[in-house]
Amino acid sequence: MRILVVNVNTTASITDAIAKQAASVADAATEIVPVTPSFGAESVEGHYESYLAAIAVMEAVRAYPGHFDAVIQAGYGEHGREGLQELFDVPIVDITEAAASTAQFLGRTYSVVTSLDRTVPLIEDRLDAAGLGARCASVRASGLAVLDLEKDAQASVDAIVEQAEQAVARDKAEVVCLGCGGMAGLAEQVFDRTGAPVVDGVSAAVTIAESLVRLGLSTSKVRTYAPRPPKTLTNWPPPPNSS
Amino acid sequence: MRILVVNVNTTASITDAIAKQAASVADAATEIVPVTPSFGAESVEGHYESYLAAIAVMEAVRAYPGHFDAVIQAGYGEHGREGLQELFDVPIVDITEAAASTAQFLGRTYSVVTSLDRTVPLIEDRLDAAGLGARCASVRASGLAVLDLEKDAQASVDAIVEQAEQAVARDKAEVVCLGCGGMAGLAEQVFDRTGAPVVDGVSAAVTIAESLVRLGLSTSKVRTYAPRPPKTLTNWPPPPNSS
Amino acid sequence: MRILVVNVNTTASITDAIAKQAASVADAATEIVPVTPSFGAESVEGHYESYLAAIAVMEAVRAYPGHFDAVIQAGYGEHGREGLQELFDVPIVDITEAAASTAQFLGRTYSVVTSLDRTVPLIEDRLDAAGLGARCASVRASGLAVLDLEKDAQASVDAIVEQAEQAVARDKAEVVCLGCGGMAGLAEQVFDRTGAPVVDGVSAAVTIAESLVRLGLSTSKVRTYAPRPPKTLTNWPPPPNSS
Amino acid sequence: MRILVVNVNTTASITDAIAKQAASVADAATEIVPVTPSFGAESVEGHYESYLAAIAVMEAVRAYPGHFDAVIQAGYGEHGREGLQELFDVPIVDITEAAASTAQFLGRTYSVVTSLDRTVPLIEDRLDAAGLGARCASVRASGLAVLDLEKDAQASVDAIVEQAEQAVARDKAEVVCLGCGGMAGLAEQVFDRTGAPVVDGVSAAVTIAESLVRLGLSTSKVRTYAPRPPKTLTNWPPPPNSS
Amino acid sequence: MRILVVNVNTTASITDAIAKQAASVADAATEIVPVTPSFGAESVEGHYESYLAAIAVMEAVRAYPGHFDAVIQAGYGEHGREGLQELFDVPIVDITEAAASTAQFLGRTYSVVTSLDRTVPLIEDRLDAAGLGARCASVRASGLAVLDLEKDAQASVDAIVEQAEQAVARDKAEVVCLGCGGMAGLAEQVFDRTGAPVVDGVSAAVTIAESLVRLGLSTSKVRTYAPRPPKTLTNWPPPPNSS
Amino acid sequence: MRILVVNVNTTASITDAIAKQAASVADAATEIVPVTPSFGAESVEGHYESYLAAIAVMEAVRAYPGHFDAVIQAGYGEHGREGLQELFDVPIVDITEAAASTAQFLGRTYSVVTSLDRTVPLIEDRLDAAGLGARCASVRASGLAVLDLEKDAQASVDAIVEQAEQAVARDKAEVVCLGCGGMAGLAEQVFDRTGAPVVDGVSAAVTIAESLVRLGLSTSKVRTYAPRPPKTLTNWPPPPNSS
Repeated sequence: MRILVVNVNTTASITDAIAKQAASVADAATEIVPVTPSFGAESVEGHYESYLAAIAVMEAVRAYPGHFDAVIQAGYGEHGREGLQELFDVPIVDITEAAASTAQFLGRTYSVVTSLDRTVPLIEDRLDAAGLGARCASVRASGLAVLDLEKDAQASVDAIVEQAEQAVARDKAEVVCLGCGGMAGLAEQVFDRTGAPVVDGVSAAVTIAESLVRLGLSTSKVRTYAPRPPKTLTNWPPPPNSS
Repeated sequence: MRILVVNVNTTASITDAIAKQAASVADAATEIVPVTPSFGAESVEGHYESYLAAIAVMEAVRAYPGHFDAVIQAGYGEHGREGLQELFDVPIVDITEAAASTAQFLGRTYSVVTSLDRTVPLIEDRLDAAGLGARCASVRASGLAVLDLEKDAQASVDAIVEQAEQAVARDKAEVVCLGCGGMAGLAEQVFDRTGAPVVDGVSAAVTIAESLVRLGLSTSKVRTYAPRPPKTLTNWPPPPNSS
Repeated sequence: MRILVVNVNTTASITDAIAKQAASVADAATEIVPVTPSFGAESVEGHYESYLAAIAVMEAVRAYPGHFDAVIQAGYGEHGREGLQELFDVPIVDITEAAASTAQFLGRTYSVVTSLDRTVPLIEDRLDAAGLGARCASVRASGLAVLDLEKDAQASVDAIVEQAEQAVARDKAEVVCLGCGGMAGLAEQVFDRTGAPVVDGVSAAVTIAESLVRLGLSTSKVRTYAPRPPKTLTNWPPPPNSS
Repeated sequence: MRILVVNVNTTASITDAIAKQAASVADAATEIVPVTPSFGAESVEGHYESYLAAIAVMEAVRAYPGHFDAVIQAGYGEHGREGLQELFDVPIVDITEAAASTAQFLGRTYSVVTSLDRTVPLIEDRLDAAGLGARCASVRASGLAVLDLEKDAQASVDAIVEQAEQAVARDKAEVVCLGCGGMAGLAEQVFDRTGAPVVDGVSAAVTIAESLVRLGLSTSKVRTYAPRPPKTLTNWPPPPNSS
Repeated sequence: MRILVVNVNTTASITDAIAKQAASVADAATEIVPVTPSFGAESVEGHYESYLAAIAVMEAVRAYPGHFDAVIQAGYGEHGREGLQELFDVPIVDITEAAASTAQFLGRTYSVVTSLDRTVPLIEDRLDAAGLGARCASVRASGLAVLDLEKDAQASVDAIVEQAEQAVARDKAEVVCLGCGGMAGLAEQVFDRTGAPVVDGVSAAVTIAESLVRLGLSTSKVRTYAPRPPKTLTNWPPPPNSS
Repeated sequence: MRILVVNVNTTASITDAIAKQAASVADAATEIVPVTPSFGAESVEGHYESYLAAIAVMEAVRAYPGHFDAVIQAGYGEHGREGLQELFDVPIVDITEAAASTAQFLGRTYSVVTSLDRTVPLIEDRLDAAGLGARCASVRASGLAVLDLEKDAQASVDAIVEQAEQAVARDKAEVVCLGCGGMAGLAEQVFDRTGAPVVDGVSAAVTIAESLVRLGLSTSKVRTYAPRPPKTLTNWPPPPNSS
């Protein structure tokens, strides 16, 4: 089975890290294909960049030349999953929702810990829109951006672990979803300090995508995600070498 | 005061109709500037086209060369308003929300009547996301697309009026929001047959945008819609003459 | 256009302040008519006085001898708006709801800051009843009554600004509605200290009432606010010179 | 123990019927004192009359010369209970809430059947405001007013029984609350035709009021219903012989 | 009238304390019959013990040889009430729900204060399932188990009173339900320190059970609690002297 | 990996059918171990039998002599999953929740179709308790019990397919979860007639349990499902040969 794992930004090193994480949990028979959008932001933080990512991810999947069995949208709290479900017949799994859905099997409540406070509303809104908000105890931010992370990795990890601890102690979260990636040892430290299971969205999404394919299930086409009627698009998509 | 009224699709005749409606209710001192996106679908029906419209509307406003005091996004149930709020300092008004917000001053409950059933979930989700879902009695569709409308205008009007009647009789709506435009005499017929006030989204949005400007109020920048930090965009925006 | 702006208490100086605020934002062609109830409390704080105000406001409007195009009920969190909608054919706008509805166009969430803690539940209940509670981050009180305000205006302003700051910092409000009036420079100070847009209910209500009239819209009479069937009232209204 | 049972309208025969029903279930040691407001509507149907009743009931209780241990507000879906809780130290029981609260002990869901459709929204709003809406399956109206009832009692009973049947069959109600009184044999017929327990609000309120008194419990005064600070009322209450 | 008051655990001294409390508020004509389950935990704290108690309580009532008019399930936040409603024709009253329902007549919001934090989720879930969650301000735990209580009674009382104070001050509770029993003077101390009415679940349940019997009302059998069709049970119930 | 798949009733042929279904989707390296409770009802329909099943399932797992990596509770809408989470360290998956969680990845809304109407409330309550109710369009029953099914298999299938069709057409479900098993070809027929993906709970649960084990995740022990403190159980468990 071939699963496209699509980064939401244009930074290839992040695509690599996501793909590596996905491959580490995938079945031996699963081929993980990393996809980087051809346009968009180097990192996605906020609504404009997230909407741009939504359409960039859709175009990247449309442009993929081969067959694939499922798509994972690997961005936390981003727009666009519904468009992928409308465009394609294979299962589509968003990592924000995969993490929350998995967390709900592990505890009565869960929290999400992410990096910047400005992404908290996006995550909250996506969880509500997906019907996964009822057991969300909180979405918390460390306040440190990706750039801060590179400058002082330990400080970033500490800031995130601290928010996870407050999620458990104050918000009564029983499971922690990590809404930011690439920090070595982060999950282990959060678990060690809180005792709460820690869910990584990419990993969760891989197992869910594999499961849906194995069960022969895919997106319902009876209403919201029914195929589009034939329609003329103007000036779209942009020419391949537009830059 | 200058208000940009942005169509969500690329069909200029629809932009004209929207601008005409907007101008008919605008203050004498208000300049209504119609804007048509440079890329996207000829008509927006469903998630892919709506996400594409979201980013096309944002780029169209970014490309507007002059000063403006407010922006109206003139599409029903479409994505993207949050991105405009993030990008610009002026008030942003979505017609779906303007209609619902206005309807809530007129009756205890309201319904939206639109054309295609596939757009119903988008409208419901936008109303919920905007905190306007509690008093929404129903979102109903006539089942007729825009093309059907042109073929047989009276049949389209009849189908919409019938849904409005059911909204009032069965769903206990007290106000009807029209989630589709351009049909001559539609509002009058709905009012005549139901007795319920009929709200047109474009008209409502114009008065709200004017009011916000007059009150000196604009989008909050303290959290969700704070300005983006400096960021590199790859291959974006597409070159002006990309077609 | 003539708009009745009805105070909820019997203190004429408060009516004057409200009317002055209303006139400052009204269109040049709008006549603002201040109305003071002929009976009731000198200031309304709590349920008994609020219910008394509800009926006093209705009688005051019934007693108004001339034509009018809209009514603004100028009290925060008070009962009675539904009765006005039932009695009259013109648009009725409550300032609590006008402020919240306006705030929702400016940010993802809003808070209300009022004077006494005992009025917080009334405001919360009115917002919920109006379908405007979903995006309300909090209703906060400064703890200072109107009398305290007169004794030490700066202390009152400081107490309110502090609550506004906490609404933004702790409750994640992005817009602040002021549920108390008459303090010079209050809105400016709140904005300066929080960066959040500040909505004044009376001002918001004036623009909404004007907009509804301009759009030719008024209260739905199909169900909740349908005219009363003929009915005998006993000992009511009280004789004009009952005191 | 003495319980004031206050009618919400000025029709003495209705007060008598309510008092008779209350006495039939009251403890032998309980004195039921019927109270009729000195002003207001002959029957309360809609918001204006309900708000007027709210204040008329409060004044009637204020005017009662003797001691009393509890107050029952005997109107379905009416305003005002919060004001009574603020004014007095004894327990206050509204029959709408008493019926719903009792029904919740008898089945998973309940419906209310009332007379006129225009009172349905008032009942729904009161149940929501009291935190009793979650298990309310529906509020249904027979469409017949009190006057119709007198003209053709059997037709009225039939219309109500039919709505009760639909509440059970379609809305999945397991208990029926009767939101209208005075019809001989109504409860029996509803039970015979639906098999669902039938709750009468006045009866339920009497047992709840007695229970609260027996347990030594009364309205909390810590916040919402704290005593009013001293305040000047203008032209209120109206002179006793104002008619 | 005879009311079975069923302890959820097997500790006879707790059954005695519950029965004593029940008898102290019961009508003179009411016979309170204490029932202790024949199997289960010495004290119920958590889901396994609570599920075991659910079935033990049902079997204890099934094994009761005489007639009875109502059943009170005397455990806080425990499973099983729905099973009793299905098995028997008489009214069933759970003390968690009795307390909350009573509290809602006394104030706008209520909190529950219990002993161990691990029982908080059970109480919250039961209140939500019963449709009583909307006005619940919080469920708080003192952190002290029953064993701690015996070791240092005053420390336990202090810990509970402190949580009650925080429920009123921070969570804006207006009424306090005590979700733990047997502490002398606890209710008085909570009331003295908070001013909020304090509701004891067992007492509230007795008055509600008596009221339902007096009104001739019992569990609806139209759907959820309809009698079971004939069914074979394997190895159940266990033999009487199984230990 | 070894997964216990526990039937909720004592009918061995049903255990076999469940195990066969589980094995058909399990990974080649997964050992499916069927478990039948030693006591309880031959089929579980309603609250008493469901509570009995809850404790019977827990005892059956406690009695299992070997190691296991996960437990699937294979009953639709039954009580007890929280107890298993408290007792054991391995992941616990309930098929009701597994189906709903899976369905949410396939469409905007889902419905459950089950056999008897009396089980509908149990399923609704379990979905709400698990935080999975927001996107549930309806739970529908065919009205035919398991015995009816054996008498006329085609009639049963037809009745269920009809409810699935109504779920899609009237309730706007986009995915159908089958809340009843063992009918040959049922899923195919439902899909053929509705076009909606059909989710089988047992199959979904197997893939979820396998995924959780593969990810190294298990039940959170920080609060609700923390291990029980040492406690004395009286007369429990029942002796092995109690019948």
